[in-house]
Amino acid sequence: MKFICDQENLVKALNIVSKAVSMRTTLPILKGILIKCDVSKKRVFLSASDLDISIETGTEALIEDEGSIVVSAKMFTDIVRKLPPGEVVFELKEGDIVEVKRGYSEFTLQGIPSDEFPRIESIEDGNSFSLEKTLLKNLIKGSCFAASTEEARGIITGVLLEMEKDSVSMVALDGYRMAIVKEVIKGDEERRLIISGRIVQEIGKLLADNDNSEEEDVEIKVSDKKAIFHLKDTKIVARLMEGEFIKYKDILPKDNNTKIKIRRIALMESVERASIIVREGKNSFIRFSLEEGQVIISSRAEEGTVRETVPIEIEGNPIEIGFNARYMIDTLKAIEDEEILMDFNTSISPCLVRPIEGEYYEYLILPVRLSTASI
Amino acid sequence: MKFICDQENLVKALNIVSKAVSMRTTLPILKGILIKCDVSKKRVFLSASDLDISIETGTEALIEDEGSIVVSAKMFTDIVRKLPPGEVVFELKEGDIVEVKRGYSEFTLQGIPSDEFPRIESIEDGNSFSLEKTLLKNLIKGSCFAASTEEARGIITGVLLEMEKDSVSMVALDGYRMAIVKEVIKGDEERRLIISGRIVQEIGKLLADNDNSEEEDVEIKVSDKKAIFHLKDTKIVARLMEGEFIKYKDILPKDNNTKIKIRRIALMESVERASIIVREGKNSFIRFSLEEGQVIISSRAEEGTVRETVPIEIEGNPIEIGFNARYMIDTLKAIEDEEILMDFNTSISPCLVRPIEGEYYEYLILPVRLSTASI
Repeated sequence: MKFICDQENLVKALNIVSKAVSMRTTLPILKGILIKCDVSKKRVFLSASDLDISIETGTEALIEDEGSIVVSAKMFTDIVRKLPPGEVVFELKEGDIVEVKRGYSEFTLQGIPSDEFPRIESIEDGNSFSLEKTLLKNLIKGSCFAASTEEARGIITGVLLEMEKDSVSMVALDGYRMAIVKEVIKGDEERRLIISGRIVQEIGKLLADNDNSEEEDVEIKVSDKKAIFHLKDTKIVARLMEGEFIKYKDILPKDNNTKIKIRRIALMESVERASIIVREGKNSFIRFSLEEGQVIISSRAEEGTVRETVPIEIEGNPIEIGFNARYMIDTLKAIEDEEILMDFNTSISPCLVRPIEGEYYEYLILPVRLSTASI
Repeated sequence: MKFICDQENLVKALNIVSKAVSMRTTLPILKGILIKCDVSKKRVFLSASDLDISIETGTEALIEDEGSIVVSAKMFTDIVRKLPPGEVVFELKEGDIVEVKRGYSEFTLQGIPSDEFPRIESIEDGNSFSLEKTLLKNLIKGSCFAASTEEARGIITGVLLEMEKDSVSMVALDGYRMAIVKEVIKGDEERRLIISGRIVQEIGKLLADNDNSEEEDVEIKVSDKKAIFHLKDTKIVARLMEGEFIKYKDILPKDNNTKIKIRRIALMESVERASIIVREGKNSFIRFSLEEGQVIISSRAEEGTVRETVPIEIEGNPIEIGFNARYMIDTLKAIEDEEILMDFNTSISPCLVRPIEGEYYEYLILPVRLSTASI
């Protein structure tokens, strides 16, 4: 096995597959990157896998000899990143020794035979659909943060990708808040995939890194157990989660007594300031007092107090309600609109955040019970 | 006590004094910032101290009422940073409560009476001298990294500032390497100050942050126990270390058998690459083999090997010598010259790194003993 590849291209490919390298595994081979040459495709392919997510990407190379080998991801990536720009010569020698040469630099690395490396699967049958790259990226950015990160929470550590006749949605929730982002698209068959939030985050990062202005499609192939995302040279294999997702539509509130229109950034900055005081206490609860023309955001701890006023347009009754500052900030950061609507019902029912126009997103935030003592 | 101050000016002042706030103290007052108004000077003064280093700085303000109070450094800094630009009103109320107002934001913070705060000393007598700001910054950048960071090592955790008739030097060492940076200046009396390397680093950061193109002088006042650095509005009080510094001139090698001239960046990058392989092993030793026209830098570990070649001009005998990669990299990073000279004597005597011309710096790096087994 021998190939010659541009250092910068190799770095780009390594940056992509690195996201799937297992860091905390006890299996040395999963800390590795599989390097494979294909003469007919004139490409070298790199792959990594932590068994939940696998990523394979290819880059142009002059292939002198086919073959494959696994090398330490950390060491190989560090070496290639530090090499000066130009042609890197990669050659497999006796005893699984890998030789990497660039100008006056010569490395040897102990490789591991590739047969033990997990197979990066393909799905051959025609069960597939496409989404625009930017659309998929926005769905991920808008929803993924709300998924539970506690492994024991089961299905809600996953993100639901739901295709309906005229829309595609992504939904995540963790028992305290819920995020729904929905885009209108041309109809496809209905389907529901649940993928671990952690994996969806990684896919989001890959799409963001790959952010040239060109609009491209991501092709998604689905089998019983896996979904494979294809973007140009890169293939991401994600394990599907089994089970039923929460019937999230049933959770959405039907009524509201109070409806406000507010500038998103002003609210976000006020909540951020209000949370400074309570951040280090047990609870980072802040109080919203909705009145005619303004919301007063306040919090109180041993160390001090804060009172912020943000102008609003209000319809309905004044209301007092408490929130965890973190959940409110996460939500407001995920939105890009200048102004938003917020619906309230009672001080113990969830708040719904939605756009002034359209139905692009719905965020639900559970309140915390106000007691005069705690807030 | 009441003053009105521009938010951006207040942030700048807080950034300066924050460097002296104690993080790991059990005395709550040392986690605070002293705020003091002076009507006659039309300024508000902020101070922080961890007993080893104290910093005081002033900024313009409209003073309505004199007074002083201590507030939590972390909370006050976080609040002021997050406030929108504009006029911040600061007022001390009953019960040591501090009120901070900016537009629609109102904070109260529990203050601590200022009498318990350590006094930021002044030195009244005339024992003082000046150094150009850039010169002082360069002395610090060039030497400080070499000071020992192990508290038990006593005097060598300090940095020596040495004034001689026609020069000023800064010297630091840790038993494995030594840095000497020397600038020619117009004569002053001879003096030697030893200040903790950690404090000198902080002074260096303050000088770098304060980096406008104007050339300014730093006035340094010295007493038996303290040195006070004055830069414009800022005063840094550093405790002097007691004891004799190492007689560093005696350590400098007198002879050399081999002398090379080498491109600094090429050497640094090669050493960095060579250290990737050994970084995670017990010893990050690399081997230099100096030959006619080139130095071969190599290292070897279980995971692989590396061999780097860098062109040199050599005078004297070929030599093989081993170094700790970290020490070599630190030294090469502290230098700005394109080319440097390196003197070697035997494979167990220190290497001296010095400029092609002049005597601006001398760096001494102790070798590690080469055994065929370890390197």
